[in-house]
Amino acid sequence: MVNVAIMGHGVVGSGVAEILIHHKERIDNSVKDDVNVKYILDLRDFENLSYSDKFVKDFNIILNDGDVQIVAEAMGGINPAYDFVKKCLQAGKSVVTSNKELVAAKGAELIRIAKEKNVNFLFEASVGGGIPVLRPICQCLAANEITEISGILNGTTNFILNKMIVDNMDFDSALRLAQELGYAEKDPTADIEGHDACRKICILATLAFGKHVYPESVYTEGITAITLGDVEAADTLGYVIKLIAHTEKLNNGKIKASVRPTLVSRGSIISGVDGVFNAVLVNGDQTGEVMFYGKGAGKEATASAVVADIMDCAKHLKARKYLFWEEAEENYVDSSDNEFGKFYVSLKSNDYGKMKNSFSEILMDNEMSFVENKYQNTISLITQPISKKDLLNKLENFEDCEIKVLHTMC
Amino acid sequence: MVNVAIMGHGVVGSGVAEILIHHKERIDNSVKDDVNVKYILDLRDFENLSYSDKFVKDFNIILNDGDVQIVAEAMGGINPAYDFVKKCLQAGKSVVTSNKELVAAKGAELIRIAKEKNVNFLFEASVGGGIPVLRPICQCLAANEITEISGILNGTTNFILNKMIVDNMDFDSALRLAQELGYAEKDPTADIEGHDACRKICILATLAFGKHVYPESVYTEGITAITLGDVEAADTLGYVIKLIAHTEKLNNGKIKASVRPTLVSRGSIISGVDGVFNAVLVNGDQTGEVMFYGKGAGKEATASAVVADIMDCAKHLKARKYLFWEEAEENYVDSSDNEFGKFYVSLKSNDYGKMKNSFSEILMDNEMSFVENKYQNTISLITQPISKKDLLNKLENFEDCEIKVLHTMC
Repeated sequence: MVNVAIMGHGVVGSGVAEILIHHKERIDNSVKDDVNVKYILDLRDFENLSYSDKFVKDFNIILNDGDVQIVAEAMGGINPAYDFVKKCLQAGKSVVTSNKELVAAKGAELIRIAKEKNVNFLFEASVGGGIPVLRPICQCLAANEITEISGILNGTTNFILNKMIVDNMDFDSALRLAQELGYAEKDPTADIEGHDACRKICILATLAFGKHVYPESVYTEGITAITLGDVEAADTLGYVIKLIAHTEKLNNGKIKASVRPTLVSRGSIISGVDGVFNAVLVNGDQTGEVMFYGKGAGKEATASAVVADIMDCAKHLKARKYLFWEEAEENYVDSSDNEFGKFYVSLKSNDYGKMKNSFSEILMDNEMSFVENKYQNTISLITQPISKKDLLNKLENFEDCEIKVLHTMC
Repeated sequence: MVNVAIMGHGVVGSGVAEILIHHKERIDNSVKDDVNVKYILDLRDFENLSYSDKFVKDFNIILNDGDVQIVAEAMGGINPAYDFVKKCLQAGKSVVTSNKELVAAKGAELIRIAKEKNVNFLFEASVGGGIPVLRPICQCLAANEITEISGILNGTTNFILNKMIVDNMDFDSALRLAQELGYAEKDPTADIEGHDACRKICILATLAFGKHVYPESVYTEGITAITLGDVEAADTLGYVIKLIAHTEKLNNGKIKASVRPTLVSRGSIISGVDGVFNAVLVNGDQTGEVMFYGKGAGKEATASAVVADIMDCAKHLKARKYLFWEEAEENYVDSSDNEFGKFYVSLKSNDYGKMKNSFSEILMDNEMSFVENKYQNTISLITQPISKKDLLNKLENFEDCEIKVLHTMC
């Protein structure tokens, strides 16, 4: 028998409990053992469940029960999850979690403890919900050197942008709709400001490149500044706007990492990722581009990924998975923003005539395509390939204009 | 030290050798052991390679060398690959392969021997080349009951159809171009008649549903009957034509499995899979729809998937992976073709006027949309949801017409 404790009985935790209990036969058959939910930790009372007898309110009951070999952390946030997970690992229990905030902030320390104690610390559900991403990157692409990862990692912002693109809905209305449908929290900051996507790209970069990437080191820009005008101009220019998380290995041993609204060419497969769906594009030196796609959130999907990790732990109680990475040196994430590529530039001015003249003189040298919106006094364009530094230098000539610069990808 | 033998030094085998030898440091670091290529089996001479000393021409040298723990089979075809692989497994060596024909035809027997001998038999590269598909299905989606899999599993036919759709190229010219570019063999039968896709959907169905599916039991239709007229009509109706391999679990314990040209709605993510790319859409009861996408062939991609399997074997020499399935009972694959759904119907007649009249009388009762091509005397349409049996009954009224019926998917 393998005994499991679940910490937290919210959306994910209750999903984990339901799958483990309602699909017990299927799971036991696959694991070839009796996978038993022994405890569920929650401060609240859950009296009318078929498994109400399993609830405990004291974490120490789980910690001190030597029969509990696997703990699923589904509380969310750093505290007390960090303290509890650390103590469980130190006590020789394997831990699985969907908590991206915890893994992004404390993963390096926790994986080190797991290694010392020869137990597993798995977190497939922390990126892409139920989409298999982390295990394929670590195992199936093991013979590759991963060079770059780009992803749509936050379903809420993708839903909002999609509503703006397809239904011409403004940002505020789309956000309200997302909240009504349960896709966005009452306080949507973590989603719309890009923090959630940032934690996930940190985890991906950490696993792909082998050194821990902390959220504070990643340039993060949300979607709150994107207007319907941007969405329409992008459409005319052949692009859709997506919140893209990106990381890339540099030749000097450092990496780049960012989260920012990005114009994605309509020809690319990732431009077709709509609604609450997520997608992760991985570039390997041998496989080329590989994409993983699916619903990135939701109770059942996320819970099923946690359960798959529990099953993996149950099958490998004595054979630790080869998952490990190190702390990075200082300035491992290159924070300079001097990229080379095509950029989206939007210029807005009350003196539209003057702006248009300067625009022709200064920016039209390379026959770029552009969109005029005389009603909103805006010119939007995609530049030819140019260094961002050179572009920003040129844009200094438009001192009276409101200027927006966004990155693009093919 | 872990000793590996590679059988076959063709496209895939040489790729495996190159990765294992040129990226040895990276691989050894990941496996935490010395992964050594001891032999390469090929009847031909390869004199000017940095690893020419490793070649042998006698299979028994590999079989009888107790130091060889892992054998990579990259010969292709059933004979002598089947005999060699069987003997290696029986001798207690783990075997990895990219040989879809072998796995589809003999996998049930080979996995049984592997289980008896407590060694691994892995074949990630047999479906989707370098795209991680099999391992994610078996491991990451382990907490799911998989209900359905659809895929674009053959890059050659997808390239040909894409050229017809995008460049208005007819089938023969597109096939010739595919051959010139090295995407199609001189004898393209296995690709264009759907046999290659059939072997792959057999492997997917086997792993997803737990019983061996043999190619002979799967309805298989290639793309040779698809005309430019079909492609254009599909486009007008909002669809693209793809060669879709499909399998689905039925309530009675049986499964459906087929390979056929299918009209895919332009709104779906799989409709954007162009060129030589492959994609596998998996439906799980918990995760919903998940898609894996990438180049499904190519030396480096396929070889890297074989190497990832070798690395997995090297890490699990004493802990066999939990991969297993059974032989199926007779008639496990439901061969009846009475599906319910929207169908594409194309009618062609020399007496266009008469056909059009009958068409309006008999088929227009449910306000279907249709495309007329008076130049080719053809009417094409998408039906409302209907059972295929009822549709075929209605079509009996068009006895003088050339009739084509294709399935659709959303």
